[in-house]
Amino acid sequence: MAKGAVYFHFPHKEGLAVAVVEEHYACWPQILAEVDAENLPPLETAIAMLDRAALAFRDSTVVQGGARLQIERPQIDAEFSTPFVDWTSFLTSLLAQTRDQGQIRADAAPPDAAARALVAGFFGTRHVSDVLHQRTDLGDRRTEIRDPLLRALRT
Amino acid sequence: MAKGAVYFHFPHKEGLAVAVVEEHYACWPQILAEVDAENLPPLETAIAMLDRAALAFRDSTVVQGGARLQIERPQIDAEFSTPFVDWTSFLTSLLAQTRDQGQIRADAAPPDAAARALVAGFFGTRHVSDVLHQRTDLGDRRTEIRDPLLRALRT
Repeated sequence: MAKGAVYFHFPHKEGLAVAVVEEHYACWPQILAEVDAENLPPLETAIAMLDRAALAFRDSTVVQGGARLQIERPQIDAEFSTPFVDWTSFLTSLLAQTRDQGQIRADAAPPDAAARALVAGFFGTRHVSDVLHQRTDLGDRRTEIRDPLLRALRT
Repeated sequence: MAKGAVYFHFPHKEGLAVAVVEEHYACWPQILAEVDAENLPPLETAIAMLDRAALAFRDSTVVQGGARLQIERPQIDAEFSTPFVDWTSFLTSLLAQTRDQGQIRADAAPPDAAARALVAGFFGTRHVSDVLHQRTDLGDRRTEIRDPLLRALRT
């Protein structure tokens, strides 16, 4: 697409930034629909979502662009969706279902605390991978944080 | 200090940014000297360093400023120290000592992988806390990621 066409649709840079961030967030319901079709138990759904999100951060230009803009939000004069909150609610709900099915260790953190740890660990891993290795190592790195956090949860 | 005085010492904004980032990094050897004085075992030294770093991110304007500038590095025309690398080496060394003393679980990740997970989890937690709550909840949040990661390491 020519630069002129982009500015026809998005006369202000800020409008373009908001559109990229919203397109980024629109990826997650699509991925959830794919994962839901597999009818996994709730904890496996959570893991599958995080694994596919990691691949999207590694491979999708829109997801990378939205994430970069979210990082730069203090410098951009636009209203973006608040990051982290929806993912945390989503994972909290899946972990609460897992607990109610007796599939979480008795000494594990409550669902909301465990969900916050998963979100923070996932975000930190992809940011460090982005800064140090342009995300090329994200496939290996994500299991380094995912596996110990899951070990603290699984019965 | 008057704005004029700042620009006398730092005629370019970029020079000021580099000075803040270097001052941020200069905090860690000071904190390490305090922790070393306690003669803790290596794993407890790692935990004490991460705990004190979390407090510095919550309370120190210089540490917060350096972290914010590191996040904005793609937009700043200055050479900052590469983030994450020194912390990862430092924690890898402490975890390797802990392993050599037989104090790490046999099924734990190798020291370098465990150190990367600690660094990514720590960074992610403080960034999420910064974005969502201006770091006011960092005291509570840091244990949510620290405790499950440590549980996967400790014998």
